[in-house]
Amino acid sequence: MSIRKAIWGDNFEAIEQNLGEVDPDLYAYIRDFAYEEVLARPGLDLKTRELLAITSLIALGAPKEIATHLEGALRNGATEQEVRETIIQSALFVGFPNALAAMKTFRALLRKEGRASSRERG
Amino acid sequence: MSIRKAIWGDNFEAIEQNLGEVDPDLYAYIRDFAYEEVLARPGLDLKTRELLAITSLIALGAPKEIATHLEGALRNGATEQEVRETIIQSALFVGFPNALAAMKTFRALLRKEGRASSRERG
Amino acid sequence: MSIRKAIWGDNFEAIEQNLGEVDPDLYAYIRDFAYEEVLARPGLDLKTRELLAITSLIALGAPKEIATHLEGALRNGATEQEVRETIIQSALFVGFPNALAAMKTFRALLRKEGRASSRERG
Amino acid sequence: MSIRKAIWGDNFEAIEQNLGEVDPDLYAYIRDFAYEEVLARPGLDLKTRELLAITSLIALGAPKEIATHLEGALRNGATEQEVRETIIQSALFVGFPNALAAMKTFRALLRKEGRASSRERG
Amino acid sequence: MSIRKAIWGDNFEAIEQNLGEVDPDLYAYIRDFAYEEVLARPGLDLKTRELLAITSLIALGAPKEIATHLEGALRNGATEQEVRETIIQSALFVGFPNALAAMKTFRALLRKEGRASSRERG
Amino acid sequence: MSIRKAIWGDNFEAIEQNLGEVDPDLYAYIRDFAYEEVLARPGLDLKTRELLAITSLIALGAPKEIATHLEGALRNGATEQEVRETIIQSALFVGFPNALAAMKTFRALLRKEGRASSRERG
Repeated sequence: MSIRKAIWGDNFEAIEQNLGEVDPDLYAYIRDFAYEEVLARPGLDLKTRELLAITSLIALGAPKEIATHLEGALRNGATEQEVRETIIQSALFVGFPNALAAMKTFRALLRKEGRASSRERG
Repeated sequence: MSIRKAIWGDNFEAIEQNLGEVDPDLYAYIRDFAYEEVLARPGLDLKTRELLAITSLIALGAPKEIATHLEGALRNGATEQEVRETIIQSALFVGFPNALAAMKTFRALLRKEGRASSRERG
Repeated sequence: MSIRKAIWGDNFEAIEQNLGEVDPDLYAYIRDFAYEEVLARPGLDLKTRELLAITSLIALGAPKEIATHLEGALRNGATEQEVRETIIQSALFVGFPNALAAMKTFRALLRKEGRASSRERG
Repeated sequence: MSIRKAIWGDNFEAIEQNLGEVDPDLYAYIRDFAYEEVLARPGLDLKTRELLAITSLIALGAPKEIATHLEGALRNGATEQEVRETIIQSALFVGFPNALAAMKTFRALLRKEGRASSRERG
Repeated sequence: MSIRKAIWGDNFEAIEQNLGEVDPDLYAYIRDFAYEEVLARPGLDLKTRELLAITSLIALGAPKEIATHLEGALRNGATEQEVRETIIQSALFVGFPNALAAMKTFRALLRKEGRASSRERG
Repeated sequence: MSIRKAIWGDNFEAIEQNLGEVDPDLYAYIRDFAYEEVLARPGLDLKTRELLAITSLIALGAPKEIATHLEGALRNGATEQEVRETIIQSALFVGFPNALAAMKTFRALLRKEGRASSRERG
């Protein structure tokens, strides 16, 4: 299975079409180099790779793209707790504001998917 | 065992003394909040936490502190390959220059420790 | 008085509830460590601390959180001029685009609060 | 002709009024120092200066201001292809997420202006 | 008195000559725009401006230039404690690594000047 | 001719060996993707690409790698003035400290190569 399918799941076709329309050449590099070459390398499981991707994106200011990898982490076996720990830890290295912005995106995503935080459910 | 001992290993006393001399209050926060509270949280194993720390530090420009966590990752069960994959992947998100700087630090560390890369040993 | 009350003012309850819903653990660290421990330290008055916070946030790209500290600065005795000087100076160190983004947020805030700039009133 | 007119084109009056209302002093520095002094220097043509500006803004996270310089590049003789190459190349140095965000802004701009990508028309 | 003299103190001539040799035009902008125009503006005292400068530089990764403004802060009335608080607070917004790097530079500076930290003397 | 030869010039063999020893896989991506695929694309001449690379690296904090591209720009037809303008302009977007750090590296490079600035000779 392609790495993009593993990370994008049901959004595969929508994301692929969208990125291709943004720019066919840039998308080709994202597809063939970023996803199907580098992220497809052996040596780290995809769950860990997605937690690392989230960490990189938090450092960049937690832009919208982070939603793709927050979903990708859950889709590849990360628990909600593991994603939360990843976000919380990043506050130590890049500060609370970027970590908080990422957590807001994650909370909105969980709400949209009808997943209540185990913390909130008590 | 304290998280600092798990990450710093044999360098524990030297690092502790050095940071305490740099600033006792800042070190107290690094010790009590960063290491013994946040990095000590359950939910992610220490090996994964160290790979995430490396990723955050690469995004910051791979400063000298990264050596502490490159060693910390190895000390907590990360293989040389897992650290290399963490560094290589980060190039996708924060660019090649910062990833390359981190890899140079990692290579110097492996050489100092007399560990030849399996790649180089052929 | 808690530091959060001093900075958040009338927004205290709304912000506290919102952050607690985003993530109870991350909020606990923001509350107990960031605000009530570090920002509560003696040695710098709260007005200066808020101008420093604004400066840090401009360097991060002036995200939405900056509004909290722009209001916090005014609430703790900073004049409109002092906030403007803080923003203008930051252009020297981190560039005009991030300084301009912060100034736009500040101007929108002043308008919302019905405060006309003394400059604009002439 | 002023550099601002060359870069802002038909948006000159709207941008000038908007920035003046955001802050008269900050705008005065942007006008007199950034545009009419530094960007007006000889030694590099304005097209190249705008491609450099785009590159700087991508590194900062591709904020909204980038639209001004994407338009400014086209207005000063850059082809669509030259702007695309500038954005694509930046992925090597600052990562794919910020490059992709810039390309999305560029694509939206081309659509708004009724310019179809030659690639898409292909 | 010029702002540069107030900030650079006894190092004025050495810094001026050094920067002029690095690049006469860039130095002219640093001198005439950054120091003698922006940092010379009324509305914030020079001590506060230097603490803000330190904060901006920590966010940029605490490069060597920070030493100039650490000295400049002390030279314009900041106590050692005020500088330490400025550095410690920045850890909340931009993370511990950059704050720690700045504190190491500050400690080295205090040692060079034969100033023992009151904490250490304590 | 390979893009690496065009940019690295006489340093080609030394750089290639050095990077290969740092990490064979990361170097393979830098060689085959960054240089021989992306930087080799048509649509922008190599001189402009090197000025853009310098701009990206200044935004990242002007690390040592910038020397490679400062030399690469000169090697591909950029004049000393064009490189200086590129560095000076970047101060507007990412601040004076990173621009100044890049200019120091450029000045050191020109001295090493026995090229006196026309300004200085003047």
